[in-house]
Amino acid sequence: MDYAIGVDVGGTNTVGGVVSAEGKILFRGHRFSESPSGRKRFLQILKSLVDELQKKMEGGRLKGIGFGLPGIMDQTDGTIRKSPHFPDWDDWKFRSELEPIFKTPLFFDNDANLIALGEAWTGAGRNIPDFLMMTLGTGIGGGIIIDHKVYHGTRGFAGEVGHIVVEPEGPDCCCGGKGCLEMYASATGIEWMLKEAGKKMTVEELSKLAQKGDALAVGIFKKVGFYLGIGIASLVNVLGVETVVIGGGVQKAWNFFMPVAEKEIARRVYKATAKSLKVVRASLGEDAGILGAAGQVFNDGRQSG
Amino acid sequence: MDYAIGVDVGGTNTVGGVVSAEGKILFRGHRFSESPSGRKRFLQILKSLVDELQKKMEGGRLKGIGFGLPGIMDQTDGTIRKSPHFPDWDDWKFRSELEPIFKTPLFFDNDANLIALGEAWTGAGRNIPDFLMMTLGTGIGGGIIIDHKVYHGTRGFAGEVGHIVVEPEGPDCCCGGKGCLEMYASATGIEWMLKEAGKKMTVEELSKLAQKGDALAVGIFKKVGFYLGIGIASLVNVLGVETVVIGGGVQKAWNFFMPVAEKEIARRVYKATAKSLKVVRASLGEDAGILGAAGQVFNDGRQSG
Repeated sequence: MDYAIGVDVGGTNTVGGVVSAEGKILFRGHRFSESPSGRKRFLQILKSLVDELQKKMEGGRLKGIGFGLPGIMDQTDGTIRKSPHFPDWDDWKFRSELEPIFKTPLFFDNDANLIALGEAWTGAGRNIPDFLMMTLGTGIGGGIIIDHKVYHGTRGFAGEVGHIVVEPEGPDCCCGGKGCLEMYASATGIEWMLKEAGKKMTVEELSKLAQKGDALAVGIFKKVGFYLGIGIASLVNVLGVETVVIGGGVQKAWNFFMPVAEKEIARRVYKATAKSLKVVRASLGEDAGILGAAGQVFNDGRQSG
Repeated sequence: MDYAIGVDVGGTNTVGGVVSAEGKILFRGHRFSESPSGRKRFLQILKSLVDELQKKMEGGRLKGIGFGLPGIMDQTDGTIRKSPHFPDWDDWKFRSELEPIFKTPLFFDNDANLIALGEAWTGAGRNIPDFLMMTLGTGIGGGIIIDHKVYHGTRGFAGEVGHIVVEPEGPDCCCGGKGCLEMYASATGIEWMLKEAGKKMTVEELSKLAQKGDALAVGIFKKVGFYLGIGIASLVNVLGVETVVIGGGVQKAWNFFMPVAEKEIARRVYKATAKSLKVVRASLGEDAGILGAAGQVFNDGRQSG
């Protein structure tokens, strides 16, 4: 049978999966990413993970390997421009480095785009040609799906939806800007708001407090919802999509931030779109990254075939 | 010779042109739009304008007619959802109304998208596959060009870049929201800022004052630039384009707002994009609308042929 391998590289863990053409994960593998052990060591890790997975499928036909990478990938030449977790990866010509190692079609994209592609393939975005995926994690990952494919923009830098400005003179963001959506509706943003209030805890702990009606916790999630709603309205007005899929760890606090977000969206989104707009929760959880990575192999094949 | 007719409908004037396959306007025509004389009268106006233009090209081969409309056009069924200047146009099934009148391929889009397409065809966006066009006029019109074509989103509502939020609790916008970019970087926005300062004048008059160093005028254009820069940075981060083309009447005050805008863009745009980003002035002026309207005929033909 035909299969693909999807590899989802994270700052700490690198996970891989053997994925069928129907989008089922048949086998899984795991390695520690071992940052900052260097490029050479990382290539060995990838090779050993892929070899392990390939062995489980003897007799099957490997159609290609897809990689999801944390950072900015230049699609025009397969170079990783910058990866926050891997300081020595700047301007790494990743595609040309990997091609001699794995003699099969290779596909690369950033992790947020592939979470979107995973949800498009077998998750909350299934059968929805165009949607926006927002992953509210440590930061905010964004992926734009147009006609069932990832929209990359000119070089692959599109979809950085965490870095739209929602408060002109808001807190400094890691991107160099100020008041980005990421500073309000991600775990980093929530930590910053807690710090402003002289507190320190995880999003989970904050959710438990909100559950009990704690005023600070309720207030912070309202702020998350307020700015998320503003961001979603702006993004929908620009992108003209009718579905927004929300994933990531912060999404678990849905009931605490979503009512306020919905109010802001209703107030601010273009009326012609408002009627048909749906904001829904992601359905694949952690598997989205592997499925999206592998999905590149089958989707690209289908689209060009 | 093959030719197209492009018709650009405005609130007051409807202009049309005979356009060659090379994007030259060979003949022009004009009618008053006569809003609010009603749908039937408007169809007569269109018919007489097209007939006049067609007569000038006897012996030529009309490849199709493209219409640019002020308002929101649903591309899935050719319905005008809403047009601010024509109160009786709501939910008008424009395409099916026009097809029996003009027995030739017909194309429809909103005027802002077609200004973008015009600039893509023969203007500042020529040979640039992906760019964002912003028309700073009474409001802000937006058009997103991806791979030389207008990007519509699911129904044709994409590109409403005037309605991204740049100041969460800013002034009320005609769209029902608050603090939209349009309330700062359009003629309407400038009027609002003047009103806040107890003044009333045109953008041209304000430019003359700024030229003389008047503090209020300089301050207002700085505010235009500040919010425009924020808006452009956000939009570029989402769309991943490397070119932004700015047109419209407010654009004439370029020297007064652009230095501040450029500073904000540099501070806030994703670093990977910043290097290659260009913000340039539109080059077609008023002709962009006719050229874009006609451009639909040739471009759609080329893309599908």
